Amino acid sequence: MHVVITGAAGFLGQKLARKLLSGEALTAPGGVKREVLKLTLFDVGTPAADIVQDKRVTAVTGDIGDGAVVRRLIAGDVASVFHFAAVVSAGAEADFDLGMRVNLDGTRHVLEACRALKAPPRVVFTSSAAVYGGDMPKVIADDTPLTPQTSYGAQKAIGEFMVNDMSRKGFIDGRALRLPTIVVRPGKPNKAASTWASSIIREPLQGDDVVCPVDPSVAMYVLSPRRVVEAFVHAHELPAAKLGFNRALFLPGITVSVKEMLDALKRAGGQKAVDRVKFVPDAMIRKIVAGWPPRFDAVRARALGFKADDNYDQIVQAFMQDDLRRNAA
Amino acid sequence: MHVVITGAAGFLGQKLARKLLSGEALTAPGGVKREVLKLTLFDVGTPAADIVQDKRVTAVTGDIGDGAVVRRLIAGDVASVFHFAAVVSAGAEADFDLGMRVNLDGTRHVLEACRALKAPPRVVFTSSAAVYGGDMPKVIADDTPLTPQTSYGAQKAIGEFMVNDMSRKGFIDGRALRLPTIVVRPGKPNKAASTWASSIIREPLQGDDVVCPVDPSVAMYVLSPRRVVEAFVHAHELPAAKLGFNRALFLPGITVSVKEMLDALKRAGGQKAVDRVKFVPDAMIRKIVAGWPPRFDAVRARALGFKADDNYDQIVQAFMQDDLRRNAA
Repeated sequence: MHVVITGAAGFLGQKLARKLLSGEALTAPGGVKREVLKLTLFDVGTPAADIVQDKRVTAVTGDIGDGAVVRRLIAGDVASVFHFAAVVSAGAEADFDLGMRVNLDGTRHVLEACRALKAPPRVVFTSSAAVYGGDMPKVIADDTPLTPQTSYGAQKAIGEFMVNDMSRKGFIDGRALRLPTIVVRPGKPNKAASTWASSIIREPLQGDDVVCPVDPSVAMYVLSPRRVVEAFVHAHELPAAKLGFNRALFLPGITVSVKEMLDALKRAGGQKAVDRVKFVPDAMIRKIVAGWPPRFDAVRARALGFKADDNYDQIVQAFMQDDLRRNAA
Repeated sequence: MHVVITGAAGFLGQKLARKLLSGEALTAPGGVKREVLKLTLFDVGTPAADIVQDKRVTAVTGDIGDGAVVRRLIAGDVASVFHFAAVVSAGAEADFDLGMRVNLDGTRHVLEACRALKAPPRVVFTSSAAVYGGDMPKVIADDTPLTPQTSYGAQKAIGEFMVNDMSRKGFIDGRALRLPTIVVRPGKPNKAASTWASSIIREPLQGDDVVCPVDPSVAMYVLSPRRVVEAFVHAHELPAAKLGFNRALFLPGITVSVKEMLDALKRAGGQKAVDRVKFVPDAMIRKIVAGWPPRFDAVRARALGFKADDNYDQIVQAFMQDDLRRNAA
């Protein structure tokens, strides 16, 4: 079957691409499980060479905000779409119009192109915990209302409403996953306000010093790249009837404080790794992170078979096995 | 000051226009209360002659889904906008693309045109109880999550997220009101699934027979045209600080069963009026109406000074005073 991943040059897109190319079978429209024989990877940039060189892969660069581009991308025999392309939180806040173009219009273009296919395809849309904010309960539950306090969060919430309504209409068979903070990300620190949550593990284990801008008491709701890629596939494979009307859910994660993260870093890399972390408070980052809900009770997602990591040590080990080698090489 | 009403040929738009033309003063950007000296009325059709003939009024016909049209409409000295233009529930369900074009794109065009004005204008957006649906608590509360089960409801929910986010950014000073079912509407029955709630009072009082498609036990959450027009002005006048981040709220109404409606009809028009109502069940209408939440606890709106009608007799009397005359003339 032919699968499209948007935002495929991002680290999650690339990890999903590798998983699908490893022989993963997905359910095609009609209910038959088929191997992924054609994989179209769309992004503004190009995924890693080892992915693009695969004979099943076509890499397409373009602007997700351009409807004509998306209609050409999602056409013909496309059977499933993983839609990850997005302008991240800080970017959508700095440039409102860009966020609306990519996060709202881009998502709408994807869903409309899916609707135009012969059979309604399964669509996995990445939403975010940024749909929550402001006055929240101490623990986010499945029925907590969406109260985004960023343009990114608002655009993701709008995307969820479109996925739900177009699924209800039978135009698509959508699934929207609100992701915890994904740690430990490979690569380099980026401009996300959460980037330190990966950096404080990754950089010391790679032998570099790193600054932590928040207090040791700060807690994050996190999930590993391994588990979230499994969740993308699991979400795709869930029968629509099990989801019912509401196609959006937040994924199970674990809540970990910075202190607990550094304790795990010590177990993995010793005191010399921990000594590479310097606490330099950043008022802006602290304020943004304080607005994120650290605790969720993912009753619905767990009942649907989604799984969190067992503990933070497991997350660190997965990073060392999957990504530390690659970066060090 | 210069005010724009979109959807101004609708019955609520016309009632608001008459109220503003009666000498109502509104708060302009900067905080000064000013009389409405220019009133631009936008719709696909034209409002009633008595409104359009007023020297302060300019009637403009056009398509709210056309961004260029909306940018010309909301420009220059426009200080406030009441955005009512919409494709109604049944229409948006029958024609998904039209609903998206009018209800989503139209709202976005209005908000973007407002953002382009010199000072962020107050914008009153009409949302709907249709943002709720499916599995709901018995009484809708301020923190009940939005779960629309119609494209209309989804598009209104999306409009609310845009109003909230663009208000947070300081682009506009928005307010979104979720309306109860407005009764008693003047005019003729339309295609709304709720049209009977007005018809079973209006038609008998005007001497016509009428069919009621639902059981006497069915309850509706209702508000009179008088009170909702007061609510539009009150919402406009509320200081932004009193609303805080969440600019959307549902209005106080009263919950009335069909039996109670007919009891009030009898008190207003005698047994001969009630005898004009024939019960002819309509499975489709019953199903749609059964999906509407009949009970709301409008704590936030009441605290902000919004008012429901005292009772259903008052609603019937208001109709007889305001609209029965006009139709009978």
